[in-house]
Amino acid sequence: MIKGFPFLLVDIPKCEQNIAFMVQKATKAKVLLRPHFKTHQSLAVGELFRKQGVNRITVSSVAMAEYFAAGGWNDITIAFPFVPQMVQRVNALALGVDLNVTFSSSQNLLATIDRVESKVGVFVEVDVGHGRSGVAVENTRELALMVNLISSKPNLVFKGFLTHAGHSYSARSREEVDKLHSEALSKLAKLRSFWVDQFPDLAISYGDTPTCSVSDEFWGISEIRPGNFVFYDVMQYQIGSCTTSQVALALICPVVDVYPGKQKIIVHGGAIHLSKDRVEIDGADCYGFVCRFDGKGWSNPIPNAMVTSLSQEHGVISYSGNDLDGIKPGDLLAILPVHSCLAVDCMGQMFDSEGNTYDVLPKNKR
Amino acid sequence: MIKGFPFLLVDIPKCEQNIAFMVQKATKAKVLLRPHFKTHQSLAVGELFRKQGVNRITVSSVAMAEYFAAGGWNDITIAFPFVPQMVQRVNALALGVDLNVTFSSSQNLLATIDRVESKVGVFVEVDVGHGRSGVAVENTRELALMVNLISSKPNLVFKGFLTHAGHSYSARSREEVDKLHSEALSKLAKLRSFWVDQFPDLAISYGDTPTCSVSDEFWGISEIRPGNFVFYDVMQYQIGSCTTSQVALALICPVVDVYPGKQKIIVHGGAIHLSKDRVEIDGADCYGFVCRFDGKGWSNPIPNAMVTSLSQEHGVISYSGNDLDGIKPGDLLAILPVHSCLAVDCMGQMFDSEGNTYDVLPKNKR
Repeated sequence: MIKGFPFLLVDIPKCEQNIAFMVQKATKAKVLLRPHFKTHQSLAVGELFRKQGVNRITVSSVAMAEYFAAGGWNDITIAFPFVPQMVQRVNALALGVDLNVTFSSSQNLLATIDRVESKVGVFVEVDVGHGRSGVAVENTRELALMVNLISSKPNLVFKGFLTHAGHSYSARSREEVDKLHSEALSKLAKLRSFWVDQFPDLAISYGDTPTCSVSDEFWGISEIRPGNFVFYDVMQYQIGSCTTSQVALALICPVVDVYPGKQKIIVHGGAIHLSKDRVEIDGADCYGFVCRFDGKGWSNPIPNAMVTSLSQEHGVISYSGNDLDGIKPGDLLAILPVHSCLAVDCMGQMFDSEGNTYDVLPKNKR
Repeated sequence: MIKGFPFLLVDIPKCEQNIAFMVQKATKAKVLLRPHFKTHQSLAVGELFRKQGVNRITVSSVAMAEYFAAGGWNDITIAFPFVPQMVQRVNALALGVDLNVTFSSSQNLLATIDRVESKVGVFVEVDVGHGRSGVAVENTRELALMVNLISSKPNLVFKGFLTHAGHSYSARSREEVDKLHSEALSKLAKLRSFWVDQFPDLAISYGDTPTCSVSDEFWGISEIRPGNFVFYDVMQYQIGSCTTSQVALALICPVVDVYPGKQKIIVHGGAIHLSKDRVEIDGADCYGFVCRFDGKGWSNPIPNAMVTSLSQEHGVISYSGNDLDGIKPGDLLAILPVHSCLAVDCMGQMFDSEGNTYDVLPKNKR
């Protein structure tokens, strides 16, 4: 039951369409879809995937793996580098489910490997251009060192290489996404051909929401791990991954005050609801698009209106033109978040248009 | 008990000192201290205030008011504009505690006033320069309209005027804070003198962490409402409100990877832990200062090192010099957050150095 405002409204039919789109794409491209569940962190949203045949998932923390394992998911990859602080919980969890872990360097491998007691699948993270973490895909010596170390442990099953082409998030057109996608595939194909004789079942795990939304070709790839696409958001719209009508999540905010002279509206909806993630639009910070709300669903974004500033509980909408004339305190507006993963994490729960609750991994279970 | 990493460590003796500093300042200036509890959202941290004689508090939402009321606080101001969506819960809550609400315009007053049934104290929000919400302090006609409306309702007790000089957050020196503080006091003194004959008990409620930390004079002010000072953070340090040694909160993060060639370190500590709030330092985005951690407490910040990028779970530390030589995966670093209010909201719980838990208002109670 919806208790208070603002609240996060999820459009379930849109989610189902977004999932179907990616399931069909994976089927057609003959890659496994192992969606990243860090976006929704929700067993109830997970069920929407299960209904469409998804049975392998990706998460970004041990706590998230525990949560989904308790909800019946039994093939889980933790796509975050494995550090010693996680060992105890990974050892326990891997007794009950097929668990894959990730190492991003020989250093974090060496720091942890001797303390892993359960049987786990192991991915080695490679960097295809993002520059955040993972071994440079060309660094054969470091990769060989890691693969040999993993192979020397009977309880570690080397699965293959995993990458996150996170630099796709700085793309601002489908063409840019396509270009870096082709470059990544080409690098991964070389990597695969180097290792596939020794490991015929070698997995190449790849794919974020921009590349998986825009591209249809995944030659040489075994599985894709997009996450955000289930909801999409303003950032993905700006990248070119989706239309605004595919965005399946909005924060429903009471209007607090209207200042027509300044062309500003204050809503109850701030940094603890939307997060402070932002995109730049026409040189200004944007924290969300603004839609009308009819009590069940939301309209297309109102042109020339966006959230331009957030404090803890306040959101400031700036607009031009007269589309927001007549809005008054107590009315409700729907804000499309810039980054749906963070909005879900901020809000901790979602509701659908029937008032059903979609719980999220609680903060104190992490 | 600390379950996982990263976790939020609170330095209780520092909190107690920060509280004592503000209690003494308020006593000396003969103003009431009504601290803003939106920073910690925690009954256990609230007890630290109670021990030092604080018995009136400020919150930023009805949910927060309910949470603290259930914990025994019985004089609470909701310093966020009252909208119709809050009426039912306010009516119920005001039956059990002394509750003050805030209106920021005649429009939100008119939208709500007829539905308020319980006895509540009422503040009118004025704007002394921040430009976010509230009636311009000079707009006597609008203020008179609101005061008359409030006074016409027997269950509404007009308390006075409330302001948030949030533009102090854009100050970057104690001198700048002092200057805007003096301007605000001067405007509020005029407001007070206009109304005090009609309302001899008129309250002027003022004060954010920058002005209350930096300034000692509060002539004409009845009560101050700073909140952040209990923890402080990198933003307050940059404003000039505190030293880094007064910061009482740090995120304890496992080191994931080290890239000495790039002078970068990856930690487990991202946007869902620290929030994406940031300050600019030497032209670069800063998401936190970096300290050593000895298992109990943290060092002074390491010079020439800061968190320069965050994704959902990853933090990227950039550094120069050799202070971080020798750090390796599995080591722990302490990150001072840019904005402690948001880091607490992100993490949902804190721990002290003894491993005691400090719970925070759960997300699903909001």
